[in-house]
Amino acid sequence: MERCRMVFSGSGGQGVITAAIILAETAVLHENLEAVQTQSYGAAARGGATRSDVIISDTTINFPKVIQPNVLVCLTQEAYTKFSAIIRPGGLLLTDPRFVTPQVKVDARQVALPMYERVMEQIGKPIVFNICMLGAVVGLTDLVRPQSLVKVLSERIPSGFLEMNEQALELGLAMGRDVG
Amino acid sequence: MERCRMVFSGSGGQGVITAAIILAETAVLHENLEAVQTQSYGAAARGGATRSDVIISDTTINFPKVIQPNVLVCLTQEAYTKFSAIIRPGGLLLTDPRFVTPQVKVDARQVALPMYERVMEQIGKPIVFNICMLGAVVGLTDLVRPQSLVKVLSERIPSGFLEMNEQALELGLAMGRDVG
Repeated sequence: MERCRMVFSGSGGQGVITAAIILAETAVLHENLEAVQTQSYGAAARGGATRSDVIISDTTINFPKVIQPNVLVCLTQEAYTKFSAIIRPGGLLLTDPRFVTPQVKVDARQVALPMYERVMEQIGKPIVFNICMLGAVVGLTDLVRPQSLVKVLSERIPSGFLEMNEQALELGLAMGRDVG
Repeated sequence: MERCRMVFSGSGGQGVITAAIILAETAVLHENLEAVQTQSYGAAARGGATRSDVIISDTTINFPKVIQPNVLVCLTQEAYTKFSAIIRPGGLLLTDPRFVTPQVKVDARQVALPMYERVMEQIGKPIVFNICMLGAVVGLTDLVRPQSLVKVLSERIPSGFLEMNEQALELGLAMGRDVG
């Protein structure tokens, strides 16, 4: 595989860090890949956009920070405004129209998927929005196998909440594949 | 402040990643510091020791990986064996005697605190062991103010679980200060 550099961005509480950790663990534990997952906080993080970086590769990763992501997810307008310019030319920019109105043209494929709306319609729990987003990323990129993600979810998530997380993952996978 | 580089290590499920994220968020949101928090996974992570790095500083952090930690926490024998050699000379090595029997001499202050035992005696829930460890680190180092940690806990942790987390934090703080 090529090295994939990703940035998941949004606001605190949307679960972008958790989604990034689940993806990194899946790659390492079940796909025989290397992964690094980072949060960089700074002055801008105070009241600002949360950012979580993941690099997945089949070779050793030396520098763990993402400068130009191949895949950029923005789940708030603020995150979009702040990060859309860093996308790698030819990369993929995923947003949710509930939270982001694209305003600039970037040299990347822009995909807007109504993930939040579908989660609320079909599951009714905003807490699994991040897992739906993760499903959409994997549906679009085929970075890891969905069954490997399910394994990690089932190890990390209390049993009473597992089903809604699996549903959210499936929802996202289907949405990502539809446009993938 | 001087830049503080930390590595929290243990096995999956001990909560070292969560502890690192809570510490990094506390530093940034309530102490006006910069922080970077990283997980590096690799071949060794499969069935091996989990490692979570945190750097806290009052100036911009460029390289987010920790090579030589000032503070190293090892919560399993395997993590101890793997990471004890990387401690910065003059640093602090924190272990729990329930899980780690020190076997090598390092050029650092070695502190063994029975955090797990105290958590089980006084709270009875192993799930808050990581928060007790975080309290001990802060009790030993004064890196952030305890009330700032409590703010982050109260934002992140569901209300039904908050009290036991605060208890675990207090327990760790007291143990850390006692030897600090």
